[in-house]
Amino acid sequence: MLKKVLDLAANNGFLSRSKSLNDKFKIGPVGQLLCQNINSEWFHNIVINKELTVVINDGDLSETYNYVKNLCSEKLPFGIADSEKIKKYTADEYRENCDTGIDFKNLLCNEDDIFLKFCVFVSPNESMRYFQRWQKQRRIWYKKFSASPERYSVSDVKNIGNTQSVNIEAKYPWGSHTVESLELNSHDENFTNEQLQFKDGKLITAHTITSRIHLSTLFLNSLCDSYDEPFFQDKSRPLWRFHRKLAPYKLSFALTGSTQSILNELNDLGLYLCKQLRTNHVSTLFLPSASKSTLDSQYVQYDQLGIPYTVVLNERTLKDGIGSLRNRDTTLKEKVHVTELVSYVDKLFKNY
Amino acid sequence: MLKKVLDLAANNGFLSRSKSLNDKFKIGPVGQLLCQNINSEWFHNIVINKELTVVINDGDLSETYNYVKNLCSEKLPFGIADSEKIKKYTADEYRENCDTGIDFKNLLCNEDDIFLKFCVFVSPNESMRYFQRWQKQRRIWYKKFSASPERYSVSDVKNIGNTQSVNIEAKYPWGSHTVESLELNSHDENFTNEQLQFKDGKLITAHTITSRIHLSTLFLNSLCDSYDEPFFQDKSRPLWRFHRKLAPYKLSFALTGSTQSILNELNDLGLYLCKQLRTNHVSTLFLPSASKSTLDSQYVQYDQLGIPYTVVLNERTLKDGIGSLRNRDTTLKEKVHVTELVSYVDKLFKNY
Repeated sequence: MLKKVLDLAANNGFLSRSKSLNDKFKIGPVGQLLCQNINSEWFHNIVINKELTVVINDGDLSETYNYVKNLCSEKLPFGIADSEKIKKYTADEYRENCDTGIDFKNLLCNEDDIFLKFCVFVSPNESMRYFQRWQKQRRIWYKKFSASPERYSVSDVKNIGNTQSVNIEAKYPWGSHTVESLELNSHDENFTNEQLQFKDGKLITAHTITSRIHLSTLFLNSLCDSYDEPFFQDKSRPLWRFHRKLAPYKLSFALTGSTQSILNELNDLGLYLCKQLRTNHVSTLFLPSASKSTLDSQYVQYDQLGIPYTVVLNERTLKDGIGSLRNRDTTLKEKVHVTELVSYVDKLFKNY
Repeated sequence: MLKKVLDLAANNGFLSRSKSLNDKFKIGPVGQLLCQNINSEWFHNIVINKELTVVINDGDLSETYNYVKNLCSEKLPFGIADSEKIKKYTADEYRENCDTGIDFKNLLCNEDDIFLKFCVFVSPNESMRYFQRWQKQRRIWYKKFSASPERYSVSDVKNIGNTQSVNIEAKYPWGSHTVESLELNSHDENFTNEQLQFKDGKLITAHTITSRIHLSTLFLNSLCDSYDEPFFQDKSRPLWRFHRKLAPYKLSFALTGSTQSILNELNDLGLYLCKQLRTNHVSTLFLPSASKSTLDSQYVQYDQLGIPYTVVLNERTLKDGIGSLRNRDTTLKEKVHVTELVSYVDKLFKNY
């Protein structure tokens, strides 16, 4: 099963097989787009947070901490987000410590391991409530983007010294993967006592809640989560059911016409619409092959790239301006007038 | 003058002075947000391109090239975007070769140098036209985000061997900086002859147009470009005139009221609006100090963070629901009903 996922990924630019390194994988060009979207959704969820002031650290954590503490007039809570690069060999030890991504760790052979880290500083009498809310919010985050939300669960709490920790786990036919680890620490050793002290009537010591995600694990998890092989005319057709916010390409174009001159006209129309969509920052794929293959083989290609919608233009479109929008998941088409395509797509992709 | 820019940046979290390293700078927490916005605008301009299919490379350039060539059914043009990390010492040589960021190079002491690279493959008979259009488009890109668009110009063309190159330059009182270098190459040595061959009636060899940007230079250029010190009550007040797409924070809140209970109510209202804006992915700053300082000192702080708009809430807002939106650049306020704030802000930030 996992092998099928990896094969589909390797055949469609999500992964590339690196022959020199014992068949390990690198992230391919389309996979890079997926990775960027994952990263940016994390950023929007964590940094542009609903409740806290959060700053980004890149370098001296202690200095960043002092900056944000000062910015917030020494009032809790606040947060620091961090994307930590760790050299591969160190990362292996690190990962064993924090119990993240054990299973996926030997699949990718990128040079550095990137961990997305987020730490929130809270007052001790609110820390338990925050910790529970965080677990819930993070689990919801995974469910939101998932093709099978029931896959995600939170493990039991482990208590070690000053620390309580839980993992968010994703369940697959071949076993479970830890996608994120959360930790509540009543005495975080990355900071001095003095740094963690706040005045709130009396003197209090801030607790920290830390979330850790291994980016490559999150990436591979997105692939495994969205892999599906629905039956179509008695044969299974593997495809990706990426959430529309994560999909590397949001839209593609399929053209069909009986003569070359009609195809040329449709190609011009498609290119024009594609430019409009891209101006609107919608990642759109327009391939030269669109006018050369059958509709069905175009759909197969686009489904294997996990593209949520395909704009279908045919001879009639040239007469009445009506094209259709094929949905990857339902395979149904709805009619859209080409002049309304851009604003309609805008609405489709705005919400989660 | 440059010193003033650096001081304002260091005092507001854009840069942090690293004492151990001869007063060189690192990018601070607010600077990270700026850097991310710059990166993401570049990405939107380059990868989600209006005209070409562009893929991202991270790893084996030759493999990525073969992937995109195949994806595009061996039809030109197409492009590859790349963010290349180069170790500091190598980067220095590299930079001298490509003549980018000479002046800024000793200011920052980050470990790696990141170059944003973009390469488009075009057919030889169109390459000159593309090259000229690229120069124009890239210059417009800089002007679009600039507080003084006249600052940017394109240098004369240099011819060396197979290569024509130009630089995009930004002019400052203390001299000019090269912010981007563009190169048209009729025989790119990063690729084999066979790779660059295409069938288009006859056999042709693709030309390449390469753009190179040193990310730290682009970051420092954004700071220098948007620095201003307008007079206010006979004193100059330094601030940043960031373009609204680049500003680390888009909105902030200023509160004013005569009693503590009014301030508490305004604080709750502000927090509620802030959550709505953040849900809408608008990077918003809401500081605990908002209810503790005078309006004017709040404005000074927000201007020094380069925040384009500030929502001002006062006693009257609690009665009639009308707040105001202060514009950083004009210092004028317009009235907005709090229920319309989110959709109004959405419109303000949608366009360039």
